[in-house]
Amino acid sequence: MDALELILLYDYYGNLLTDRQRECFELRYYQDLSLGEIGEELGISRQGVHDNLSRTEALLRNMEQKTGCVRRDQNCRNAAEAILTAARKLRNHSDTAVSRLAGEIIAAAQGLEE
Amino acid sequence: MDALELILLYDYYGNLLTDRQRECFELRYYQDLSLGEIGEELGISRQGVHDNLSRTEALLRNMEQKTGCVRRDQNCRNAAEAILTAARKLRNHSDTAVSRLAGEIIAAAQGLEE
Repeated sequence: MDALELILLYDYYGNLLTDRQRECFELRYYQDLSLGEIGEELGISRQGVHDNLSRTEALLRNMEQKTGCVRRDQNCRNAAEAILTAARKLRNHSDTAVSRLAGEIIAAAQGLEE
Repeated sequence: MDALELILLYDYYGNLLTDRQRECFELRYYQDLSLGEIGEELGISRQGVHDNLSRTEALLRNMEQKTGCVRRDQNCRNAAEAILTAARKLRNHSDTAVSRLAGEIIAAAQGLEE
């Protein structure tokens, strides 16, 4: 699993981790520190940092496998994007009923992209 | 928190619970057994069942509070419904460009209702 994928999972499930797990994860993946540097920062061994990160990665992967929240949310965003692309082509249609309905569709789809 | 709300949370997060937590929850909320009946079924005390269910409810609530997965998914379904309602009014429009785009919007939104 690459870093971008882990960071995505962390975005969703990070709040379910312990403070120490969050600290290690953020120093590693947001601040790009080495295991040794993180160990020094937190006063634990390099091996301790490694084990903590491994456990976090397994937890994040397990949560996604068991709930599928990220997959579902990504599907939703992708669909919203496709819907917006199509609806924007109708926004300035000469039939005002069409442009009004397109406006409603765009408003609903935009709420999904946040 | 009422039973329907708990069952909704369980739909999303139930797989993160232990087997025993799932067993208790399902006997209580799917099969509507009393605490005493569940205790008999599982060979534990009524109080044990009560504690198990309380812990499960707290866990489910905590997971939703920390991740918001259910709230996001419900928003997505509601938006999909609003989008479908609007797009269906355009499906048979005499301008074929409109009906084609409406078809694309409907297809994308239907994928979100599953």
